[in-house]
Parts: sequence; structure tokens; C-alpha cells
Amino acid sequence: MPKDVLYVIKIGGNIIDDEQRLAVFLASFAALKGKKILVHGGGKLATKLAADLNVPQQMVDGRRITDAETLKIITMVYAGLINKNIVAALQMLGTNAIGLTGADGDLIRSNKRTNATIDYGFVGDVKKINERFLVSLLQDDITVVVAPVTHDGQGSLLNTNADTIAQEIATAMASQYAVDLIFSFEKRGVLTDVNDENSLIPLLTRSLYEKYREEQKIFAGMIPKLDNAFAAISSGVHKVIIGQAEELKALTEGSTGTILTHE
Amino acid sequence: MPKDVLYVIKIGGNIIDDEQRLAVFLASFAALKGKKILVHGGGKLATKLAADLNVPQQMVDGRRITDAETLKIITMVYAGLINKNIVAALQMLGTNAIGLTGADGDLIRSNKRTNATIDYGFVGDVKKINERFLVSLLQDDITVVVAPVTHDGQGSLLNTNADTIAQEIATAMASQYAVDLIFSFEKRGVLTDVNDENSLIPLLTRSLYEKYREEQKIFAGMIPKLDNAFAAISSGVHKVIIGQAEELKALTEGSTGTILTHE
Repeated sequence: MPKDVLYVIKIGGNIIDDEQRLAVFLASFAALKGKKILVHGGGKLATKLAADLNVPQQMVDGRRITDAETLKIITMVYAGLINKNIVAALQMLGTNAIGLTGADGDLIRSNKRTNATIDYGFVGDVKKINERFLVSLLQDDITVVVAPVTHDGQGSLLNTNADTIAQEIATAMASQYAVDLIFSFEKRGVLTDVNDENSLIPLLTRSLYEKYREEQKIFAGMIPKLDNAFAAISSGVHKVIIGQAEELKALTEGSTGTILTHE
Repeated sequence: MPKDVLYVIKIGGNIIDDEQRLAVFLASFAALKGKKILVHGGGKLATKLAADLNVPQQMVDGRRITDAETLKIITMVYAGLINKNIVAALQMLGTNAIGLTGADGDLIRSNKRTNATIDYGFVGDVKKINERFLVSLLQDDITVVVAPVTHDGQGSLLNTNADTIAQEIATAMASQYAVDLIFSFEKRGVLTDVNDENSLIPLLTRSLYEKYREEQKIFAGMIPKLDNAFAAISSGVHKVIIGQAEELKALTEGSTGTILTHE
């Protein structure tokens, strides 16, 4: 018997920050038939709240140093404000959504990141996905909306990269579902020229990716995303698609965006 | 066959605000055997965040007027910060908890309060509890932790009184479980003299309640709580107990606190 399709969809921060674009994305997400899980990023709201509260923010290589005050802000913004407003919007659209962090139902357990040179603070690297819990929610036709906050099992919440969470969930579910992992954001897909939406790469093999990387044609911020994506494919994820949030339907149909394949 | 016992426990704001007392309460909550649901209040954290963000707060008869900015603050503090930290602490204590608002899984749908004289803003009165969803979580041995935020099904979150949520959940579950509804807070129970913990009323019948109310021996803030409690008993809730958060075990055993009975 062929496996059921499961969409694991990551929605990026720049869409979250834009009320109009988020509404369009959520409508297309709600309209998407079948089993689905949404993982959302944080956007600039946490940075704005930190500024309003005079909590200084420190970024190292695009990663936020998460001290105790920043962890509170992240928990409020990601797990509270963003997550619950997405859930309420999906409910309005007829999708029975539930918003979870990694602590809820022990969904995602992580290890506090330790690093010899940089102290990232309360940042977690995913250790274990509770796929049994996810399967039971999916079987009850519940759409899970995951905030990028996990826990260590020792009482501490941890700030965790949303791309990584999407990839780890996709990988964990691959034994039971034909998983399409979609990274949706403000661009049309992977571009060879970040300023030219017409430079879209429709099909990206690993060898082509390595070639473009060498030629520095692939934008720096895309590299961790693509590394995650290829790791997911290697671990049994059926397909990875990268593309524009508002084009979700076309992305699932393969008519736009960048499709990643192993070879 | 006798019904299974279900504890629906409300934990008040003054305990939430006190890290030490909250830790003691959560340890006793985690140790409590059987099915249980926790409903938490908000405490002073939302008021503090509003002050830090210069969002003026207006209270009318002890109820917060919830404008759009205040709704954001409440969603961040109640559904994010407080709810997720309680869930992470319970996970550490070996209780598989999940934190939900009324929007999650369409758990609690409410109507925006309309009032001829006062505009309460984004405040909701409970319309419907999704008891089927609660039962399915309880059957999977998941402990639900409810934040006092509901939704209207039209995409809006609504600030909702936690005592009322606890009472409505207890009532909705009464047909399937023998529900003990426990209002736990910083006092030993219902007191005839609010400044004297020895003035505890161990057993409060409805007629005794009415007598004390007439004599103005029952503290103003207790009245909506007790009205809710008697309404719950009238609707089939097995028992209502009011008492100190740290004495949870003794409260469930009936050896302390105030027990409310119909007659």
C-alpha cells in the first residue's frame, strides 16, 4: 500500500511579519488537502519587542544569542503571539489546528547547544521528535502548528531553528508517510542571482548545488537551508521544495519553485 | 460502572507570580494520580509587561478592558510565557503535559462580550467546550494545561476568565467523569474573615453561602468564584473544593480547604 502524503511546510519570518502575505499563505495552506504540519519562524517581532523592552540583542552568524530575558521574549512572541494567531486564523478557515512547542506532549526534545568558543545561551539542537504523538494527532485530522521553541526535559525551554525543526519532523515522519518538505518564504525559490526572480533554479541536484556553491551563486542564507534539505532527502524524505509562500498550491503540484533531488 | 475521577484544577494568579510557590504546587500537581486538567490564571505579569511597554491598562470591577494591544500582551504572557513554562516544568516532573488555548483544537469557543454600558474589548464568554477532544487527550494520558485565552471562530483570540473556563470544562466533562473541581490559590479556603486563616469554612452549603453573603462575611472577590462553583455543582460536577495551592493532596482527600455542597 502506498504511503499517505504528508506535507511538512515551513513558513519563513518575512511572511510572518507581513499581515497581508501571511493571510494569503494561510488561506492556501488551509485549502491544501491531506495531512499537513506547519512550522513557523519568528520574524522581526521578537527583535522589535526586545527593543521596546530595552533587552539588547546579539547576533552571531545570523543566530540569536538567547539569554534568559531573550528566551522569555521568544517564548512570548513565537509560542504565544505568532503561534496562537496562526491557529485562530486556521480555525476560522475551517482547519482544525493546534499550536505546539516542543515541550507540549514532549513533541521535540533538544540539547542545549554547547560550543567551545560562543555561548549561544538557551538555544537547543533537536535530539528527538515524538512521532507517535504527531501521528495520533494527524489521524484525528488535527493540523499541528509548531513554534520554534523546544525543551530539554529538565524544565527549560530552548530557542530552536525553525528550518531544522521542519527538517527533523519531515525525517522522523518519513517511515510512515510520503513526506513533501516545503520551505516557503518570500522568494520564488533558489535563485542564482538573489536580485533576479527570473534566475530560479527549477531542479537542484546535489551535484548542481555543489557547483553553484563553489561558484558562489547561491546566497549565503540559503546554505544552511539547503544543507538541511539535502540531509532530509538522504534520510528518506520524498521531496523537498523551496518556493514562494503564496504559491503553495503550485509548489505542491511541482509547477513552480525549486525541487531538490538526490541526483 | 462508576465513572473515573477527573480533577479540574484552577491555579490562581498570586501563585503563578511566586516562583517558589508555583514550583511546590506543580510538584504536588504532578504527583496527583489520575486524570487531570490544569487551568491557570494570569497574575501580574501581563500588567507588568503592559507597564514596561507603556500600554495603559483599565480595570472595571476587577475585569481588564482588553484593547487590541492588551490582547497581544495577554496572548504573549498567558499563552506563551506562563503556559509553556508550566508545561516544561511538568515534563521535567514526568507529567506529559500539553498547553492549549481555546483556539487549539477548537477547545473553547466563546462569544465576544457585548455590554450596553461598558466595552470590555476582546473579552470572551465561553460558548462551547470541545469535550470530545479533551477526552481523547485524557485517554492518551496527556495532561492538558489551559491558558485563559479563547477564540470566537472568526479568527480572533479573546481574553477569558480562568475561573469560568475551569467551571465550564468541569461541567462539560461531568457526563463522562466524576469531576472534582478545585480552585486553588493563596488562601486556605473560603474564610469568614479574610485576614484570619483560622476562620476557614470547611463545608459550605448554598444556604450557608447565601447567609454569609447577606452578612457580608464573604470577601467580594470570592463571590464570582463561588457563584461559578455552585453553578458547576448544579450542572453535575461531583465536588467543588477551594483551598491553598500547596495543599493540593490534602484538598483532594478532603482533609483541608472548603468543600462546597448543594445542600
